[in-house]
Amino acid sequence: MSSKINNAVPPGIRDWAPGNAWVKRELEARLAALFQEWGYREVITGTVEYENVIARGLSHEEKCQLYRFFGRDGEVLTLRPDMTTPIARMIVSQLREAFLPLRLFYTANVFRHEKVQAGRYREFYQAGVELVGTDDAGADAEVVILAAEALRRLGVEDFKIGIGQVKLLDALLRTCSLTENQRLEMKTVLANKDFAAVDDLVAHWNLKGVQLQVIESLTGIYTIEKFISSFQGVSSKKTDVRDEFQRLKDTLVLLEDAGLRDDVFVDLGVTRDFGYYSGAVFEIYSPGLGFPICGGGRYDNLLGQFGFDCPATGFALGLERIILVLKRIDRLPVDETPEYIVGGNDCGPVFRRAQELRKHGYYVTVDFSSRTASELKMSASSVGISHAEFVGGEGVR
Amino acid sequence: MSSKINNAVPPGIRDWAPGNAWVKRELEARLAALFQEWGYREVITGTVEYENVIARGLSHEEKCQLYRFFGRDGEVLTLRPDMTTPIARMIVSQLREAFLPLRLFYTANVFRHEKVQAGRYREFYQAGVELVGTDDAGADAEVVILAAEALRRLGVEDFKIGIGQVKLLDALLRTCSLTENQRLEMKTVLANKDFAAVDDLVAHWNLKGVQLQVIESLTGIYTIEKFISSFQGVSSKKTDVRDEFQRLKDTLVLLEDAGLRDDVFVDLGVTRDFGYYSGAVFEIYSPGLGFPICGGGRYDNLLGQFGFDCPATGFALGLERIILVLKRIDRLPVDETPEYIVGGNDCGPVFRRAQELRKHGYYVTVDFSSRTASELKMSASSVGISHAEFVGGEGVR
Repeated sequence: MSSKINNAVPPGIRDWAPGNAWVKRELEARLAALFQEWGYREVITGTVEYENVIARGLSHEEKCQLYRFFGRDGEVLTLRPDMTTPIARMIVSQLREAFLPLRLFYTANVFRHEKVQAGRYREFYQAGVELVGTDDAGADAEVVILAAEALRRLGVEDFKIGIGQVKLLDALLRTCSLTENQRLEMKTVLANKDFAAVDDLVAHWNLKGVQLQVIESLTGIYTIEKFISSFQGVSSKKTDVRDEFQRLKDTLVLLEDAGLRDDVFVDLGVTRDFGYYSGAVFEIYSPGLGFPICGGGRYDNLLGQFGFDCPATGFALGLERIILVLKRIDRLPVDETPEYIVGGNDCGPVFRRAQELRKHGYYVTVDFSSRTASELKMSASSVGISHAEFVGGEGVR
Repeated sequence: MSSKINNAVPPGIRDWAPGNAWVKRELEARLAALFQEWGYREVITGTVEYENVIARGLSHEEKCQLYRFFGRDGEVLTLRPDMTTPIARMIVSQLREAFLPLRLFYTANVFRHEKVQAGRYREFYQAGVELVGTDDAGADAEVVILAAEALRRLGVEDFKIGIGQVKLLDALLRTCSLTENQRLEMKTVLANKDFAAVDDLVAHWNLKGVQLQVIESLTGIYTIEKFISSFQGVSSKKTDVRDEFQRLKDTLVLLEDAGLRDDVFVDLGVTRDFGYYSGAVFEIYSPGLGFPICGGGRYDNLLGQFGFDCPATGFALGLERIILVLKRIDRLPVDETPEYIVGGNDCGPVFRRAQELRKHGYYVTVDFSSRTASELKMSASSVGISHAEFVGGEGVR
């Protein structure tokens, strides 16, 4: 043994020890079962992508977080930073002829060279769905309902779903006669919930009357009912506002109908940080956790970047974050399969007995070292295994 | 649509389309269940490693196949080329205090910058186990029996297990008074099954009598019974030959005992290409496939490279190769869950009906576009879905 040997892993990268890996497999299996029940089919994309292909779907900030390296022919390669972009690429190159809408799901690791901090990794795991080929308000509702169902299936019952609509936000800001740069500035401070900065901009740009009312309405958080009554009036004046409001309203009514009234709130400051969102977007929060455990929304312009104009929506759950929540509420799944250890003087009969026990669904370990039945029982109980069985006569092996 | 847009993936990297990804998940789930029944617990290691840490376990050839890139602080990073080496690193840094023997399993993707050819990918999937902390001949038998059991659980019944023993091979070659370089040269041509080259070396080195007999015996392929009778004599003369022969014999008897007599043959030319093997090694072949579908063996010196001397054995199954075999013998698993499509005039009741059907375990898709019951049935049957249900009255949505 030498403590001088460096066995480090790179910053933000981690291993999953036995119990943790079991939890991850269990959660992913539950999600895969659920997504399949909803008609979604699994896909897997390559971990390594051409940087110039995959970057087409990314914002400037996301590009800055890419792991980037040279292939042996000088091409620039990268590790996928999310799954939505690679799946968009895959759909366009392989599944374009498929029946639309296409419902796909994944559970996968993604890579972002972020600042390493508590609860943030540079390699982390997501599970999610993509519903591609329909811009129906029902599709926007389906992914939100499915995300909520997914959390419940994992054991998370207490959450809030914040819904925004980036096109409605844009349309509303356009009613304030702001320039494109001003709208971007306002969206940024709204997304950051920096209301002091909102006030500063309002004062600086000298916004008054209806303009001021609109900006103030954007800083609010609304129940579905309150949102509809508050925005019904302002939305009647401009076609684009009215259309986007109506779309969002249709979706919200379906969410209410699905029993999510008390879990959903509308917050037009929810815009998601990925550059590709283009309609209803959402984030799901768990009490006391400083970051969303799920995010998603409509991205009608992403597939066009790969050569196939097609509307789409979807979401991704953050597995590490959900595990944090489950730990906090003491709802981590537990494997309760009984464990056996079988030993004896002669390995052949021990192997046979172990096989018999496995047929009952037990976890059965063979012991190669114990010399007596009592030693076997002791070594089993020292690792918390209650069932120990000694095959054959007592005595030295 | 533009066909000019480049949506390529790098050479040797591929996506898994819906059906293929389902097969992979199904096979991995069966393996995880089996490995757990045998007392193995899952681990996951980070995809990205420090090159100077992980390369400690690799041979020169393996190092040449590493994907290698610079981190932002100038450190050299790499993508894991196998799972045995990262798990060895992980055990030493995190699990050294665990009860031994430690039984671990994984299903994971690994990366090797190999020449791209049919059936070979640069990112590919393995499932395997590591049995760490015992050098018992029973442990060598356990991993072979488990590998065979794994193949059967996946639907592969027809296979041959070739067993070698690299220490016995070394000891036998030492009886021929060869230099270290000569032994290496002979091992290389034996591993390549280049028997013409074996004859050339024998002639060139002027080997005769007992030396010649030994070399000739090494080119043979033996049943368990034949191997024991053929090598019993030669093994009695030298201590190291006798010890390694006895170890291998003990293992072979256990394999016979476990019902593998007709599946196993002994071939001392099986040495595996990974540099870390140190005892009994094995490969599993399927008829008509030009490469093994499973490989493994004892690697008692690998953990020492990370600072913790500890014997170990294990194996890895190649998932892509097994899928090739299952395709060839028409035994790919099939998902027979009934599929439903539900549509209607009003999305709310459609969602509710879909949820009811899902409770029966069906895969249920909601249709957002069909306007009439007959259109819904037509679009369902066009994609092979036999169950279509229209909720609510007929008529335009």
